[in-house]
Amino acid sequence: MRRHLLSTQDLAYDDALLVLDTAAELARVADRPVRKLPTLRGRTVVNLFFEDSTRTRISFEAAAKRLSADVINFSAKGSSVSKGESLKDTALTLEAMGADAVVVRHQASGAPHRLAHSGWIRGAVVNAGDGTHEHPTQALLDAYTLRHHLAGGRGDLAGRRVTVVGDVLHSRVARSNVHLLHTLGAEVVLVAPPTLLPLGVEGWPCETSYDLDAVLPKTDAVMMLRVQRERMSTAGGGYFPSAREYSRRYGLDAARLAALPEHALVMHPGPMNRGLEISAEAADSPRSTIVEQVANGVSVRMAVLYLLLGGSEPAIGTDDTSGGAA
Amino acid sequence: MRRHLLSTQDLAYDDALLVLDTAAELARVADRPVRKLPTLRGRTVVNLFFEDSTRTRISFEAAAKRLSADVINFSAKGSSVSKGESLKDTALTLEAMGADAVVVRHQASGAPHRLAHSGWIRGAVVNAGDGTHEHPTQALLDAYTLRHHLAGGRGDLAGRRVTVVGDVLHSRVARSNVHLLHTLGAEVVLVAPPTLLPLGVEGWPCETSYDLDAVLPKTDAVMMLRVQRERMSTAGGGYFPSAREYSRRYGLDAARLAALPEHALVMHPGPMNRGLEISAEAADSPRSTIVEQVANGVSVRMAVLYLLLGGSEPAIGTDDTSGGAA
Amino acid sequence: MRRHLLSTQDLAYDDALLVLDTAAELARVADRPVRKLPTLRGRTVVNLFFEDSTRTRISFEAAAKRLSADVINFSAKGSSVSKGESLKDTALTLEAMGADAVVVRHQASGAPHRLAHSGWIRGAVVNAGDGTHEHPTQALLDAYTLRHHLAGGRGDLAGRRVTVVGDVLHSRVARSNVHLLHTLGAEVVLVAPPTLLPLGVEGWPCETSYDLDAVLPKTDAVMMLRVQRERMSTAGGGYFPSAREYSRRYGLDAARLAALPEHALVMHPGPMNRGLEISAEAADSPRSTIVEQVANGVSVRMAVLYLLLGGSEPAIGTDDTSGGAA
Repeated sequence: MRRHLLSTQDLAYDDALLVLDTAAELARVADRPVRKLPTLRGRTVVNLFFEDSTRTRISFEAAAKRLSADVINFSAKGSSVSKGESLKDTALTLEAMGADAVVVRHQASGAPHRLAHSGWIRGAVVNAGDGTHEHPTQALLDAYTLRHHLAGGRGDLAGRRVTVVGDVLHSRVARSNVHLLHTLGAEVVLVAPPTLLPLGVEGWPCETSYDLDAVLPKTDAVMMLRVQRERMSTAGGGYFPSAREYSRRYGLDAARLAALPEHALVMHPGPMNRGLEISAEAADSPRSTIVEQVANGVSVRMAVLYLLLGGSEPAIGTDDTSGGAA
Repeated sequence: MRRHLLSTQDLAYDDALLVLDTAAELARVADRPVRKLPTLRGRTVVNLFFEDSTRTRISFEAAAKRLSADVINFSAKGSSVSKGESLKDTALTLEAMGADAVVVRHQASGAPHRLAHSGWIRGAVVNAGDGTHEHPTQALLDAYTLRHHLAGGRGDLAGRRVTVVGDVLHSRVARSNVHLLHTLGAEVVLVAPPTLLPLGVEGWPCETSYDLDAVLPKTDAVMMLRVQRERMSTAGGGYFPSAREYSRRYGLDAARLAALPEHALVMHPGPMNRGLEISAEAADSPRSTIVEQVANGVSVRMAVLYLLLGGSEPAIGTDDTSGGAA
Repeated sequence: MRRHLLSTQDLAYDDALLVLDTAAELARVADRPVRKLPTLRGRTVVNLFFEDSTRTRISFEAAAKRLSADVINFSAKGSSVSKGESLKDTALTLEAMGADAVVVRHQASGAPHRLAHSGWIRGAVVNAGDGTHEHPTQALLDAYTLRHHLAGGRGDLAGRRVTVVGDVLHSRVARSNVHLLHTLGAEVVLVAPPTLLPLGVEGWPCETSYDLDAVLPKTDAVMMLRVQRERMSTAGGGYFPSAREYSRRYGLDAARLAALPEHALVMHPGPMNRGLEISAEAADSPRSTIVEQVANGVSVRMAVLYLLLGGSEPAIGTDDTSGGAA
């Protein structure tokens, strides 16, 4: 595996499977009496968050702590960053403090890439969401969930059909999923109003549609994207439909739930706007994997940190249930 | 003991004593060379705070860390909660991330109860203050302090007289104390202006009075409630007295301190408004247990987390001063 | 060594060298497979920050965690402090919670001194910056860096010439450096506009100058102070020069860099205003120690915490690379 995890577009087939396999192995730690491995003891993981995202931050924090790493949370709010410090100087600072991995969330697309390739940092950089670009660990946890249910927890997703619905234009989750699912052999359909599909989507390895009802009966999993309410209200030019219109045309309600094949999964990256892009019936139905996705997020992030930082030892030894030092 | 700690009204006599006895045992850890027990290694405690409360949060954090648990702080400010995520989805997320205990502070009375009884969470729920309802660990640390001074650190509080003074109407501390003290056999008198006593107080297991000076000579401990200054200034209709009037009629000053029996304790849950509900003489007098209450808070919270999460092993082994893994 | 670290003005020659020597020893931990020592296991370090300072806070946090201490971050924003709690009551609270060390940052000069000498706290107090007074660990890390490059990493700085440039009036960094460098035998020159030199500077153990270009050719190290942009814009009476004027007269640019002796160091406490007090050429030149200073900050803070809290054992044992408990 490479030294950083910046995007799924760059992620090779073998590396993607390695992450998923490692995550499956590490998920077993949750069943032990002491739910902790000594693997990353003495390593420091810095959560460098330029945007608030409590969920993603605590998922990485839980993952790192379960591997016994030290975690330092660096919220750019109220930090020297807000006093005008450059990304470069922030990076050099974290490097000098001994960060072994920097998990970065940034409003600017490409910021993690700059961190990783500028030579400012020797540690691993993990993209935890950058602008409208990518959110690779989200796509990996989605793939993990799909593989578990649709492929018996092994191999790839060849031939599975996944439908991604909503504001693709602004969604790093959609972008990361399209690339990873394609790499893993799945067929992806994006469903969105024309104004919420990005320029150049024709070049993406997927199909597009404006008609959710036509697509649902043929899908193995439907992934509902979160609507950013603030976009709805402030968008000029009317490119965003009203909440009511959006919900009627692109929301997953009870009727659409019934139109899905029986085995099909209902997915959402969270946090949900219940009643907008997804109804309570859909969110809480037995085929919903939404809560499971969160749990898989911790396993996948453990795998990513382990592979980027720990590499040389087996992820789980045979004899470390005592939780002693490695 | 039950699986959650939501209120003192629900807390059985035996369970209350078990918490106090366990806290007394755990308090001895503070005297060891390595002030840490391995008891909760590999467990995750989430501090889920919808209201700011640095004191309560760091008390729970210190308690959990002293038992070797991992602690994740989740402040609802700036989180997806502020983007409209429901309590349910927040709960499901924490559950999926593997929270063994969720310590919750919420502005709405009953929120911890909903968390615990909705089936959203398998882990233990500890109420760290909900609206004007309850704050059970505060009452437990107060009882611990009272028992230490008035009952030789064992048994219950049968026959002791405790006076609680101030804005009972808005005080979860008063409510939790009334119920717990009653369970433990103490006699409680509430002293407050009539406008600051809640409807239905006649049904509480205590007496009420408007006359602090009449009550003080017969009390074994006086508990001063914190005045919320913001209530004073913004309250309409004049139900809150002016600061000066409040202080004159309900403040604990040097004269009232002198009117207390010699052995009587001066208590306050903190943070204090010195000069308002309590004078500096009273706060700093030798009979003040205010600082001790804070220390007891850590022991009591260790006991609560231990009993809810650790249950099966002895709280303190005989041989674990080395601090090695359990 | 004394029980607290409050200022460099109080720091004896022997104690200063002890910190630097201990830091040099502890810096070697960074080269180990497990970068962690068990020395402060079971100790609690509280970061009590009344002012935001992410860099300083995470440097202390990394230092404490590398010594296996538990760290509790207490930001006074949104805490009971903002509800009017006194410094005294905050201190008593932290003491009661078992803080072994309190690292305090405060906007008021002298606050750490009050914390340490009031009897409120038994634990060690470390000044992490108070008003315009002192920032002793910054000066110690600067001295560490100077000693490494100019004195082969041992002994003192006798005869070395250090130039400190900028807003000395508001700079606790300047103040701490002047005293410590003087104690260690260095000669210090302060260069600043007359309006940005403090009253009473004549009594400081250093020279002053208004002419940077005259001083540079004779210096072994130049320390650029951070300009507080907010001071520039809001200062009344014009005592602060404009950014352009400041940069022209007191900024370290390529021409001034060339005027330095070949062996001279370029230092900055960070965060930098690139293009204002320091140009990119100077900041990134091979003679810049700016990133190194950050790394040395962690080592120096480890040494300070170790000496104040751990004292009795050797800082690094011979046999603890396994990272097991002490």
